[in-house]
Amino acid sequence: MTSGADVDAVARAAGPHVAELMERVEGRLAELSGDHGAVLARHAGATIAAGGKRLRPLLVFLAAGEASGAAAVRERLVRAAAAVELIHSASLVHDDVLDRAPLRRGAPTVVAQAGRTAATATGDLLFSRAFAELAAGGEIADVRALSAAASALARGELVQRADAWDAGVPLARYLHRCELKTGSLFEAAGRLGALAAGGPADALAAFGRRIGLAFQLLDDVLDVAGPASRTGKARGTDLLDGTVTLPLILAREHDPALAALDVRTLRTPAEAEAVCDRIAATGALAAAKERALAVVAEARAGLPALPSRQREALELVAAGVVERYA
Amino acid sequence: MTSGADVDAVARAAGPHVAELMERVEGRLAELSGDHGAVLARHAGATIAAGGKRLRPLLVFLAAGEASGAAAVRERLVRAAAAVELIHSASLVHDDVLDRAPLRRGAPTVVAQAGRTAATATGDLLFSRAFAELAAGGEIADVRALSAAASALARGELVQRADAWDAGVPLARYLHRCELKTGSLFEAAGRLGALAAGGPADALAAFGRRIGLAFQLLDDVLDVAGPASRTGKARGTDLLDGTVTLPLILAREHDPALAALDVRTLRTPAEAEAVCDRIAATGALAAAKERALAVVAEARAGLPALPSRQREALELVAAGVVERYA
Repeated sequence: MTSGADVDAVARAAGPHVAELMERVEGRLAELSGDHGAVLARHAGATIAAGGKRLRPLLVFLAAGEASGAAAVRERLVRAAAAVELIHSASLVHDDVLDRAPLRRGAPTVVAQAGRTAATATGDLLFSRAFAELAAGGEIADVRALSAAASALARGELVQRADAWDAGVPLARYLHRCELKTGSLFEAAGRLGALAAGGPADALAAFGRRIGLAFQLLDDVLDVAGPASRTGKARGTDLLDGTVTLPLILAREHDPALAALDVRTLRTPAEAEAVCDRIAATGALAAAKERALAVVAEARAGLPALPSRQREALELVAAGVVERYA
Repeated sequence: MTSGADVDAVARAAGPHVAELMERVEGRLAELSGDHGAVLARHAGATIAAGGKRLRPLLVFLAAGEASGAAAVRERLVRAAAAVELIHSASLVHDDVLDRAPLRRGAPTVVAQAGRTAATATGDLLFSRAFAELAAGGEIADVRALSAAASALARGELVQRADAWDAGVPLARYLHRCELKTGSLFEAAGRLGALAAGGPADALAAFGRRIGLAFQLLDDVLDVAGPASRTGKARGTDLLDGTVTLPLILAREHDPALAALDVRTLRTPAEAEAVCDRIAATGALAAAKERALAVVAEARAGLPALPSRQREALELVAAGVVERYA
């Protein structure tokens, strides 16, 4: 899913109803960021717009399949998709506050425009609006799925902070953190779509969780592999931030110098890039990518019996996650 | 409500079931802060414990009245009370991040113990847990009431930030901000209690909103009136922070120097205290207190027909808000 074109291709494969639903969720998000006055519209609108490719809303709609025909089902799906994207946007706004980030995808961040206090409140408001959106829909199962995901997302941040600077973090703990941080919201997307359509919710939730996990693993590979011209950030940014990820976890098995590395000693982008080179020299990038591909394969293998058009669209999403790396 | 003793007195007046429910909510909050691993328990536990007098949970139970007898109703009430207090705690944790506050009620804040990233995530987690708690209870009306309050609270913060440093902020806008920031969560407390008990939800929600508004007005009076020995902070702290409140809004009508004041020029606590003295000299503190008392009177007058014991307990809460100032 590197470009809007990929999302469009998936929407085409899934059928015209998906393109229509994607348009509706866009309209809903614009409404929601507008209806709390100019402040929110001005600041959060940019972040919601810059949030990216709407992969999570797309997954909501694909998990629903063709059953998204009835008007009430469509309304529920649009609410669910908007709510998932609002939680995602809220977490981006809070991340930008913490990172003091000036830009996100080329647009000024909320914190850059409005300051820390307003940005923190804006994140809280997007968060609240997500639940208000589902509450208005009246489906308690949807609220349950979203609150579980939102809790997991915050726990993932706490685990990441607790493990910061620890180059010896165990693989299992790293994978669990990725499931919490990224897998959980994709899981909710799969579940919410299936719930609305009366489909196999647990199976589609598991598909979402795995796709989200693979997405995070490949993101972490890209941070080490670069190139910066493609990722838009210097190689080793995570390392400088104290975030130890899959490539280093795998590489330290093969390189005693990496096994002995104290991440806190890395001060400059050049030092971080040198570590990235050492990691690459161990073959850990290929191994990490292998692992991500295995998770994608697991996601595909776990798909239940579905109408062929729906399955094809979900397979395209799985392939899109992998293509980001290729 | 200046001390735990006041809450105890209200609980006694309301009947032994309230004391029991207050104990249960305390246990639930301890569980919720403990079940996400040591990190959350260690950090957020202190903030939840330091959150204060559990005025919002108390209001949930009082709004329910004696009808809180059935086990299912009690369970719903405990969930609602815990959820309201979790939202309150989440907002305190985020406030402390923004203020870089070292202590809250004598206990180290989450941000002081764990840093900005972990504290922001902890606030988000408490927030999510509040909705998870209500989702587990299965009552969509409860989710609706809480998400409305949480949205209002965040909007109140945004309005406060937008109006910062503006000494000319209109009275109506100030009052609206206070309803959003403080009234909304008290409103939710009244509504949630009444909903669980099948009582008059709108009337008890309105009571809560007014009590919350009066609470905020008197809090703002205390910031100017002091004494610091009682409030635990220097007079004029809000002014130094750019927050213009009722005393100054009323005083500027009577003192041209205050009407011309540029709040940004205040740099030191001594300068802020001098402004507090000027405000007091206009009689604005008494006028502001009058206005708060009028809101409390309105809250009491708007109480619907209720069993005498329940009404008596709610009247005690109203009286307690006023006594904070006396």
